[in-house]
Order: sequence, then structure tokens, then C-alpha cells
Amino acid sequence: MIIVLRPDATQDQISHIIEKVKKLGLKPHLSKGVERTIIGVIGPEDILRVTPLEVFPGVEKVMPVLAPYKLVSREFKREDSIIDLGGDVKIGGREIIIMAGPCAIENFDVLFRAAQEIKKAGARVLRGGAFKPRTSPYTFQGLGEEGLKYLKQIGEELGLVTVTEVMDPRDVELVSRYADVLQIGCRNMQNFNLLREIGMTQKPVLLKRGMSSTIKEWLMSAEYILAGGNFNVILCERGIRTFEDFTRNTLDISSVPVIEQLSHLPVIVDPSHAAGKWGLVPALSKAALAAGADGLIIEVHPNPEEALSDGIQSLVPQKFYDLMQDLRSLAKALGREL
Amino acid sequence: MIIVLRPDATQDQISHIIEKVKKLGLKPHLSKGVERTIIGVIGPEDILRVTPLEVFPGVEKVMPVLAPYKLVSREFKREDSIIDLGGDVKIGGREIIIMAGPCAIENFDVLFRAAQEIKKAGARVLRGGAFKPRTSPYTFQGLGEEGLKYLKQIGEELGLVTVTEVMDPRDVELVSRYADVLQIGCRNMQNFNLLREIGMTQKPVLLKRGMSSTIKEWLMSAEYILAGGNFNVILCERGIRTFEDFTRNTLDISSVPVIEQLSHLPVIVDPSHAAGKWGLVPALSKAALAAGADGLIIEVHPNPEEALSDGIQSLVPQKFYDLMQDLRSLAKALGREL
Amino acid sequence: MIIVLRPDATQDQISHIIEKVKKLGLKPHLSKGVERTIIGVIGPEDILRVTPLEVFPGVEKVMPVLAPYKLVSREFKREDSIIDLGGDVKIGGREIIIMAGPCAIENFDVLFRAAQEIKKAGARVLRGGAFKPRTSPYTFQGLGEEGLKYLKQIGEELGLVTVTEVMDPRDVELVSRYADVLQIGCRNMQNFNLLREIGMTQKPVLLKRGMSSTIKEWLMSAEYILAGGNFNVILCERGIRTFEDFTRNTLDISSVPVIEQLSHLPVIVDPSHAAGKWGLVPALSKAALAAGADGLIIEVHPNPEEALSDGIQSLVPQKFYDLMQDLRSLAKALGREL
Amino acid sequence: MIIVLRPDATQDQISHIIEKVKKLGLKPHLSKGVERTIIGVIGPEDILRVTPLEVFPGVEKVMPVLAPYKLVSREFKREDSIIDLGGDVKIGGREIIIMAGPCAIENFDVLFRAAQEIKKAGARVLRGGAFKPRTSPYTFQGLGEEGLKYLKQIGEELGLVTVTEVMDPRDVELVSRYADVLQIGCRNMQNFNLLREIGMTQKPVLLKRGMSSTIKEWLMSAEYILAGGNFNVILCERGIRTFEDFTRNTLDISSVPVIEQLSHLPVIVDPSHAAGKWGLVPALSKAALAAGADGLIIEVHPNPEEALSDGIQSLVPQKFYDLMQDLRSLAKALGREL
Repeated sequence: MIIVLRPDATQDQISHIIEKVKKLGLKPHLSKGVERTIIGVIGPEDILRVTPLEVFPGVEKVMPVLAPYKLVSREFKREDSIIDLGGDVKIGGREIIIMAGPCAIENFDVLFRAAQEIKKAGARVLRGGAFKPRTSPYTFQGLGEEGLKYLKQIGEELGLVTVTEVMDPRDVELVSRYADVLQIGCRNMQNFNLLREIGMTQKPVLLKRGMSSTIKEWLMSAEYILAGGNFNVILCERGIRTFEDFTRNTLDISSVPVIEQLSHLPVIVDPSHAAGKWGLVPALSKAALAAGADGLIIEVHPNPEEALSDGIQSLVPQKFYDLMQDLRSLAKALGREL
Repeated sequence: MIIVLRPDATQDQISHIIEKVKKLGLKPHLSKGVERTIIGVIGPEDILRVTPLEVFPGVEKVMPVLAPYKLVSREFKREDSIIDLGGDVKIGGREIIIMAGPCAIENFDVLFRAAQEIKKAGARVLRGGAFKPRTSPYTFQGLGEEGLKYLKQIGEELGLVTVTEVMDPRDVELVSRYADVLQIGCRNMQNFNLLREIGMTQKPVLLKRGMSSTIKEWLMSAEYILAGGNFNVILCERGIRTFEDFTRNTLDISSVPVIEQLSHLPVIVDPSHAAGKWGLVPALSKAALAAGADGLIIEVHPNPEEALSDGIQSLVPQKFYDLMQDLRSLAKALGREL
Repeated sequence: MIIVLRPDATQDQISHIIEKVKKLGLKPHLSKGVERTIIGVIGPEDILRVTPLEVFPGVEKVMPVLAPYKLVSREFKREDSIIDLGGDVKIGGREIIIMAGPCAIENFDVLFRAAQEIKKAGARVLRGGAFKPRTSPYTFQGLGEEGLKYLKQIGEELGLVTVTEVMDPRDVELVSRYADVLQIGCRNMQNFNLLREIGMTQKPVLLKRGMSSTIKEWLMSAEYILAGGNFNVILCERGIRTFEDFTRNTLDISSVPVIEQLSHLPVIVDPSHAAGKWGLVPALSKAALAAGADGLIIEVHPNPEEALSDGIQSLVPQKFYDLMQDLRSLAKALGREL
Repeated sequence: MIIVLRPDATQDQISHIIEKVKKLGLKPHLSKGVERTIIGVIGPEDILRVTPLEVFPGVEKVMPVLAPYKLVSREFKREDSIIDLGGDVKIGGREIIIMAGPCAIENFDVLFRAAQEIKKAGARVLRGGAFKPRTSPYTFQGLGEEGLKYLKQIGEELGLVTVTEVMDPRDVELVSRYADVLQIGCRNMQNFNLLREIGMTQKPVLLKRGMSSTIKEWLMSAEYILAGGNFNVILCERGIRTFEDFTRNTLDISSVPVIEQLSHLPVIVDPSHAAGKWGLVPALSKAALAAGADGLIIEVHPNPEEALSDGIQSLVPQKFYDLMQDLRSLAKALGREL
């Protein structure tokens, strides 16, 4: 932590700050320069982070030196984390994992048809929402437990790992019974009670980045889960909110290599929610792989015209099949497998 | 809903769309122009909103005509809603209501001292968090029910209305027992299960705007609560996330008159979280009143140097007292009371 | 400048950096902590700012301590700058200065009518564009020198100070001959050649904030003008670009007290371009004054239905007249004059 | 253009609007619905775009149907534009074109060394700035004409096409004499006089996207150049400004397929300015190619520690060489050449 003093800071003010730092059990280093005096406190920043040093008289600003996350960082663990999703599906290694399926589970038939198609195309994980966070209270909110049952049954029948969103701490136990991977949606990235509840399970978690979350905050949310004891976290970039309105969100492709630098956790990309338009999904899927993503989660619907949610961003099976072909050649050129 | 067709849309495609619209029980109006053909569907947009018309072949884009919210809108209710917070405190009318207190409830004494000071200065509502949404799992998370007890006791003793955050649908009943007004924090603005749970009570609700929420989405979240039967919603602008990093958030002052145009609900401003620096709070408080806000919620702490949360943005009692004096003259010049 | 080293920085790397700092004539302070080593260099940061220390092996990050601007800062000059606009109009003191007029100069008559109305209402400065920066090459681009002539003639006839935009370094001399104050539009805030050209005159300058400029960058652009020798700079907040699309831009009201803290230069607000809708202009004008602005620049058009540019955000004279009445009472309550 | 009326619009107001539309030579279509009446005007929108219909009494909002650009659009020209940069270098076809070199031209030797290295690695175009737009007036501003001479001499000697920025309309003729391709920097994307000046030449132009420009505005700026008669425009995505501060800008990778849908012009990506950190450049370069970019512009410096500008984001020659190897395999897998 670096404490920068105001040019007019008095000796009394400086002593008051130094005393405070010492009382916290830390060692201050004073450096007097021509234009500013600074106090460096290099040590466990957590103690200082909760001390509002900016309000001490004479302080101009306080600059943290260390990252606020620990367990998720590369410093804590050098090697990539490889997470077992069940079956023989592992993510974070050489193999690229494709997750696909409809936005919402609408009924058994649509999910089953979608599942058959994505399996044929080579996806390993089936997605589908039973609890849907919808902006409007007047639109389809999901089938709830009934949808979870379809998901489990179809996943088992076709040998697909399943992933579905959990929105409420009260539903963690329920959803865990049916799905292999729990998804935390972007609107719940900072639903800390939900994070805590999931941190107490050992279920693999797909943690979507919040719409306006910095990479640092995203990693802090993952830290909540790891701090609870669950290290099976997969990060998912799904676009951030910017002024550009041609796309639904702006896919922050840079977050993929950034996460790779900062953290040992695997990172995947959701091109469907980022773009909000199916026509952009193939280009963004390829870009994600080329940027180093460990997987993709893509919306596929057998009949988007009848979809109850997000039809506009869903690929039809044939387009998904073609995309998978392209991704396979690409993966090879990138030295990975698919 | 306006459906704009691609310049190369075929007659078959147009018929297919028209048929679909009719099947939904709506009446399409076809207008052929030189450069584009459009189909206008003026009627209950909700039916169309869930139909992904953009994926129909031949469609270029779909433009909604009506706002997606109803109960919160000025069209639904012309006159301003005045909400009774308990005691004789009413918000949304001529009187400006000031809410103040520490960010978190740290212990009985600090809260009591803060409450005494804000009451003396003229505030009507005491704020203080018992459940704190914190970015880091390693910082102070709030006192929970113990804090709620202090809040209730002090509120009753000093005759102050109380407001506190509820973060979890499981806590709605508990918090309702202790506090007069329930606050939904910015990170939970789209925690739809929490909105639903609170919609089933009759408690006044302070609904903070999400960090990256449009005004439309904010109103949709309010709509969730009203649709559940609870019309006692107060909106609270607290800054949005932008590229500017000198302030913690960017106070979107324009949202105050915009809400006044679009909705009958009262709107207040939180200058403390918007600015993130106490030195900016007085200027922003005045700006909020001048823009037409029905109230303010301000962080005040008797000793910010010792605050466990957000000390940097808390006013000391003397500064708050001075600010209240200024706000009183201002309110008068604006034709309101404080 | 604080240089934070990577946890694995070698002694050789540290020596290499220290040597470099010394070669630049500066004194490094080394502090070894448990988790990180840092090198503090407290001195003229400009020398270091152009040295890419981040690329030196072993460096994790570099954090500047001092602000990059000098002449515009409060540290350089404690007292508020009061700028003489000509006639007896001075901005930056107790008096609030209102600038008003049509977006573009369309012809003599419209400008003359607008000028008469704003004068009657109490504005001191007439605005009107002769060179218009238009997003589309197919829309009205301004009358050029002919417009400047009308502006000068009408300003002199009615005793109003005049302000108009200059977009091109080649036009600085021309515009200076006709107008009292030169405006630099938001799209040209970082047109450094234009800033340099204007820095060589002594004309008062209205420097609008760029659409996506931080406050720091805005002050750096002012620094260009002051560094050239022209200290007559007025800053103008006009809204920044965010994800919110109900308003044309998001008025960053906080920038007003922030500028007041950081700089001695006067700051005004343009509520018309910020909102993009005339109905929001009164509320934002009041908010600006309450936040501490030294003036306003408002679009007024005698007949917005016929305006060739930005009619949607222009007040009709009667509304402007009413607003001025309100602003007058407000100014009084704020201890200022209008 | 769709004109949506307020629910309380009177018959007189409707007639007034219809009359206005007719007077402009256009044909209005009136559709009365249950909740709203709308007037569709399908025709040349330019006429309406300059008419502020939003200010007409009774109007709620006006929604444009057509894109505001013409010459740059796919509707205007179906096939991809292939632009001849001189020599045998053509961009926009099957071949991917790599541009590389130092940020600024610092002296002959550094540029020459950089040029040799990038040529050896397979780049076809040499970049280097002689006029530098710098945020601070106190940093290196470029060598001006002297730098241009070095660029031309080295380009000719090594058989490389050259690209350099022009910042001022007064310099267009000068820079055109020395460089093969003119670059318009992000800060000048809406410097309309510069666009016009360049529109009058036949030089290939690299038009960078503005830091906070929408894709639509970017295309409108290209439209200025094409409208002037110069069709040789290459678009360059270089990152937009968002709240994320780990990277210098947020690379909007989606803009690549979006441009491909909307326009016939080639589009390239600048990963160096987007990331602001050389360590992210390889991942972003690959992502750009995979997304469909026609080329890249990458900063390469023989000795970043000594760079006078943007050393932190420059690759050393060896890293650039390695990257080019990877890009070559990638291009092949994507069905393109490099």
C-alpha cells in the first residue's frame, strides 16, 4: 500500500498516520521527495484495505500494490487448473470443451432434439435453463424442477454432461441434485450469498462475468467460491456493457489472455449472449478459440422461430454443425484438440 | 412493434411473417416504400416481445414502439405516488426526505451516536447495513440480526424511520420484522427472486439502480415489485459505471428528471456511493435537489477513520449539519420543504 | 513514480532498473517487503513518464504519483481564475454567466430574433455555430464566414459577447476576427494542433470535454493551451458517452466539483447537448448551478420546428425566459449572482 | 422513418405532422392502433433526418428505419472492396496483410532496424509516426517532415509499403508526398475537415475507429471520405473505451464481423493500442484473424526500453517473428494466405 501525502501535509499529520500503521502491526517506510512525501507499507494489504486511510488528514490518495485476490491467482498456483465435469469431460487442459443447447428448457421434445443435434456435432456438455432471469416479469420464467428433470434424463440418455443456472441460494441443493455443473449468471456474479452457498458444495461452477464487472471483481467473485472450499470454478466471458449498441454486449476478448495471465482457472466464452445475433456467433467462436479460450457455450435451438427465449441469438443445428467443423481445424492449428 | 424487412425479402417471406402475426391474434399493417417494406403491428407488444421475429427469414430488424413497463409508468398513473414510510414520514410530495447514517452497523454505540447527530441535523430516516455485500470475502460482512436489533431499538428511541439492505430472499421476513424500509442494493437490482419476494410484502422498498442498468431496466425491476402487489417503491439513483475513474461511479443526474417524466414513483439520490469521496457529497446533494429529487441518502459516520466500511465517503456530523443548512435554503428556493 | 517489482524479480533486474533511474538524474528509494519489493522515485515525473519502465524485466507495474498537468492545477495557482470575456462580462467569480442561442447560425433573421430573446431573458453571451461538425456529410454544414459576420454584427448591436466554434487550425485567425470567445468542440478536445494554434492567441477559449475523455485528459488538453501562453480557458462539461441511451449523453455533474478541486479554471455546463432533449434542460441547468458551475450554455431557438440542427434539444424563448427566472432565485440561495 | 405519437396526440397535431411530411415531398402512412398511432414515412430518410420531428407537438419519438450511410454499405456494393496499397500489396482479398513498426519514428537507425526485422518476419507494410498526437504537451511530439523522409527512404530501400498518421488538414499534401497510406488516428475520426481533405485525394486511407465511436459513426466517417471521391478506405478497429482498466482499451472484436456484414470495405485490427501491453498482443492478433480481419497493424520496436512512445505495448523482433509463424498456420486453417 502506498500512501501519498498532500503537499501541505503537516508533521503532526504524518506522525498520526505512521502511528496508525504501526498500531496495525505493519512497518511504514517514509520517503520524502521534492514534490511529495510518500509512505510505503509493504505487507499484508488486507489489514490496510479495511482501514480508510484516505480520510486521514494530510492524505492525498492511497494506492494498493497487491491484487486483492489470492486463491484464484497464478501466484498461489502456477499450473493450470483442470476441472473434472463428470464422465470423462475435463476442462482447462489441451482439449477444448463445447457446451451447447437452447437458452431455456421449453419442453422435453425441444431439449431432446437439441441435445441429439449438439451431440452429433461433437459438443460434450448440454446447456438449458430451468430458472430464467428475465428482465420483464411478464415473460416466460422457466419450467423449474420439471425442466431440471428433463435435463438430467436427456443428459444421461445421451451421455452428455449438463449445465444449468441457479439463481437463488435456496435452489442450490435442488439444482445440484439434477445438474453436473452449476451456472452463475451474469446478474448474480455479485450475489454473494449465492456464491457462498455454492462455495460449500464441490460442484463444478460456471461463473459468468457480470455485465459491468471488471476482471478484478470477477476474480474476487471466484475467490468467494474458492474461499468457501470449492476450487472447481470455470470463468465465462459473455460480453460487457458499453456504449456500442449494434451488438447486445461487447465481447471483451482480451479478458481471455488476461485471465490466463492472472489466474490458474479455466476460461470459456459465450459468443451467443455477447453478440445477441446468431450471425455473429461463428466469427466470435473462432476468435475465442484463437485467443486461448478453454471452451465455448453456444445457444443452439432446433427451431429458433418458436424459441421462448433468445431465439434471435440461437444457431440452427446445421449452422452449429458447420461451425464445429471449422472449430476443429482451427483447434488443430492452435495445437489443441476438439 | 415495427418489423423492418430486408430489401431482398421475398413475397413468401412476407406472407410467412404476416401469417405468424395473425396467428398471434394481432393485426399487421403492411407499408411498401421505395427502399424498404415495413410491417406495423400496433397492439399488445408483450405477445410479440416473446416471439423472436428477428429470426424470421427476410426480417432486417424489429423495433418496439411501446415501453415494456406498465404499472410504474406515468401513463398508468398520472399523479405522483406518495409513499408512507411510517411515523409521519411521507416521500414523493412537497417535503424532501433525508436519510443518513453509517454505511455499516458496526456496534450499538457508533450507530447511536450517528443517529443522534443526523436527527439533530434534521434527517428523518436512519440508514445502516446489517448485511453487507462486499467485493472481497475477507472484509467485514455485517453484524446480521444483531445489527438489525440495534437499528430497530435506536430508531424507536429517537423517532427515526429505519432503512436497511436485504440481500437474500431468505432474509426478507427477518429484515421486515426490524426495519421500516427495505433497501435493494445495486448488485441485486436484477435479483428477480428477491424482487418477487419483496413484491409479496407491503413494505416500502428503496430500489437502487444497478451499476450498469439502463433507466428502462431499472423501471422493469420496479415493475416486478409492483406486479407482485407492492406499490411502495422508491427509486434511488446511485451512480453508474463509466470509464471515468476519478469518482467511484458517475452520478447520472439526468435520471432524476427522466424518472419524473416516465414514472409516478418517487426518486432519491445517493451522492455518497456515486462520488466515493466525501468532499464531493455536498455539491452532488445540492445538484440532486435542484434536479428534482424527492430525497437523499447520505453516509454519515461519527469517526470515519475508524469506519469498517466506506469511511472514505462518509461525512462527519459537523459537515452533515452544515450541508443540511444549505439544503434547507435550497429547498425553499426550489419551492419545496425540508 | 512507484515501480512495483514482480515477486520473482532478480537482483540483476533490480540493479538494472536502479541504474536506469540514476542515469536519468533521479534518486531511487528501494523498499523490500514480504510480498513485493518497490522502488519509489519521487521527483519530476515527466522524465520517467516518457521512459517505458513497464517493459524492464522484473517490473510488474508502474504507478504515477503526481498529476500530469501543472499550469491548470490548484497547486500551481490557489485562487480561482476570473476570465474577461470582453465588455464587462467576467466568468469565474461570483456572477453566473449564461450563454445561449441557436445551435447553428441559419440566417440573419433567426439569429437576430434568438439574440433579442436571450438578451431580454438576461443572458450575457450569444452562441451560434458557423462551422458545424456534423456526423453525416449530407447534412447542413454551417454558413462559414457569412455566419460569423452575422454573429459579430448582432453581438455588437445588442451588446452581447459572442462565442462560436472553430474546428480547423486554419480558421483560428478568421474566427478570432469575428468572435469574442472561441469554442473547441468535444470532437476536437484532442485535436492537438488546434489546441496549439489557439494557445498562441490571447482569446478566451471554451474547451468542451471530449465525449469519452476522463477529467485528467480534459485538463491535459487545457494544459496544451496554457502551455502555449493562453491562460483564458473555460472548461465546459457537456456529457460523456455511456451505455444509457435515453439521454443523448450522460451529464457528468460530478465533474463540476472535481474541476473546482483540481483546477483554478472556471467550469460551465452545457445541458442541451448532454440531454439531447429540451424537456430535461431546466432540471439539468438547475443541477449544474447547484453543483457549483460558473455558467451555462443553452440552446435556444425561436422556432425549433424549423431548426437546421439540434432542434430537438432547443428551448423556445418562453421556456428559456421561465428557466432564467428559476435560475435567478436559485443563484441567490446559493450565494451567487445572476 | 417511423413517427410514434403520444397517446394524447390530438387530431390537429396529427394533421400538422402529416402536412409537414407531405410538404417535404414524402408520403405518410397512418396506422391507428389501440395504444398508439404511428406515421410511417418510407422514403429518402435524409430529408427527414434534418427535420426535427421530435419537437412537433404530439410526437413521442421518431425511429429511423434506414442506415444513414450509403456508399460504404453492402447494399451499395455487394462484393468486397480490394484496395491497392502500391507495389503488389492489396488488402481486402484472400491475403492477410500485416503492417508493423515502431509507434514513433525516433531516428533513422531505429526505424531501419525495425523495418529490416518486420520484413524478414513477413510483414508487407511499415508503420511509424512522424506526427504524434500526445495527451501531454510535454512529451515527444514526433520528428515531422524529417521522419517522413526516413520512412520513404527505408520503405523504398526495403520494398515495404509505408503508412503514417496525418493529424492536420494542412499536412495532407505533405504526408501524401512521402507515405503510401495515410492513417487517420482515433482522435481524428471525427475531424471532418481532415476527412474532407483526404477525401479529395486518391491515397489509400487507414481510418481508425474513435475511442468512443459506435460502428455507425465510424462508417459515417468513412462515408465522408467516399463522398469526397476517395473509395480507398481501410477500417481499423483499435479498441474502445470502457470501464475495464486492466487493458488500455477494450478490443471490440465483434466489430470485425459486423463491418463485414454492413460494409464492403476491408477491416484490420490494431492489437497493440487495444491492449496497451505487449504480452496480450499475440492472443489478440490471433483472435482478430479468426474473427475475419483482413490484416493487422502491430507495434514492433528493436529496443522497447529506449522507445520514446508506447514502448510498453511494442513487441521485440523475436516475439514478432514467433507470432508471424503462428499467424501463418492460423491463416491457412482459416482458408486465407499470409
